[in-house]
Amino acid sequence: MRAYELAVGYPTVTPDSGALDAARLLAEHRLPGLLVVDGDHRPVAVLPGSQFLRFMIPRYVQDDPNLARVFDESHADRLSDKLAGKRVADLLPKEATAPPIVDANATAIEIATVMANTRSPLVAVSSDPRRTDAPMIGVVTVSQLLTRLLPPA
Amino acid sequence: MRAYELAVGYPTVTPDSGALDAARLLAEHRLPGLLVVDGDHRPVAVLPGSQFLRFMIPRYVQDDPNLARVFDESHADRLSDKLAGKRVADLLPKEATAPPIVDANATAIEIATVMANTRSPLVAVSSDPRRTDAPMIGVVTVSQLLTRLLPPA
Repeated sequence: MRAYELAVGYPTVTPDSGALDAARLLAEHRLPGLLVVDGDHRPVAVLPGSQFLRFMIPRYVQDDPNLARVFDESHADRLSDKLAGKRVADLLPKEATAPPIVDANATAIEIATVMANTRSPLVAVSSDPRRTDAPMIGVVTVSQLLTRLLPPA
Repeated sequence: MRAYELAVGYPTVTPDSGALDAARLLAEHRLPGLLVVDGDHRPVAVLPGSQFLRFMIPRYVQDDPNLARVFDESHADRLSDKLAGKRVADLLPKEATAPPIVDANATAIEIATVMANTRSPLVAVSSDPRRTDAPMIGVVTVSQLLTRLLPPA
């Protein structure tokens, strides 16, 4: 079983995608984070869901979480105003890095080794069997890989 | 909207759970990780899916990933043998820490502040409105919280 056979689709955004649309995509697919790809569909970063919240919650509340208690429900409804007009690029943390990438021919053990070493819950799969800087064809998640590696119950 | 209203169930294991059963639970629910709870159902750790792989992949392959390529499919089928007879406690990394916990009455903004500050994709919700060391009633995920905080499309 090779990476190109294991790869499944995963929602992606680009640095130019609208922040509000990106947040909706994450919410709709119930994801912990989104994959950010460039114009050639090569993965460039992982955008964790918590990063949207860091952008929405006022700085002084993040610094003193006790202040969060004084906000009422109407404030909660307005938090997402901060995302309007922003792009994914504005939300990406400076330390954001690309997810691990394997080539299309990587075996289950190679994928597992990459995941084990990077402690990543997913790897991106390149469309090229010889290099990892080609457009991405999908991802392999840790749960999917374990499904492949575990014996029948 | 309070934490006890937002909380949803999340698969849990205890330190005494079998490692193979735990891996199957993660695979079946397509999760990036599992919540580990004590005998009183209080969250004590997060067990990332990649930790199962770290346990299954031989140390010398993790140290030199090029060696992974020499393993064939029959090796892949036997990797999970390493989990047999092991418990979740054997797999937990030394640095494993409890997930962030909020009390049952925490507001959406309080939960969002905790997630933003800890960069966690979920928080555990305590059953007690006054303290966080009570049994857990469920979790709030970042995608669920964003669903609550975003305006209708």
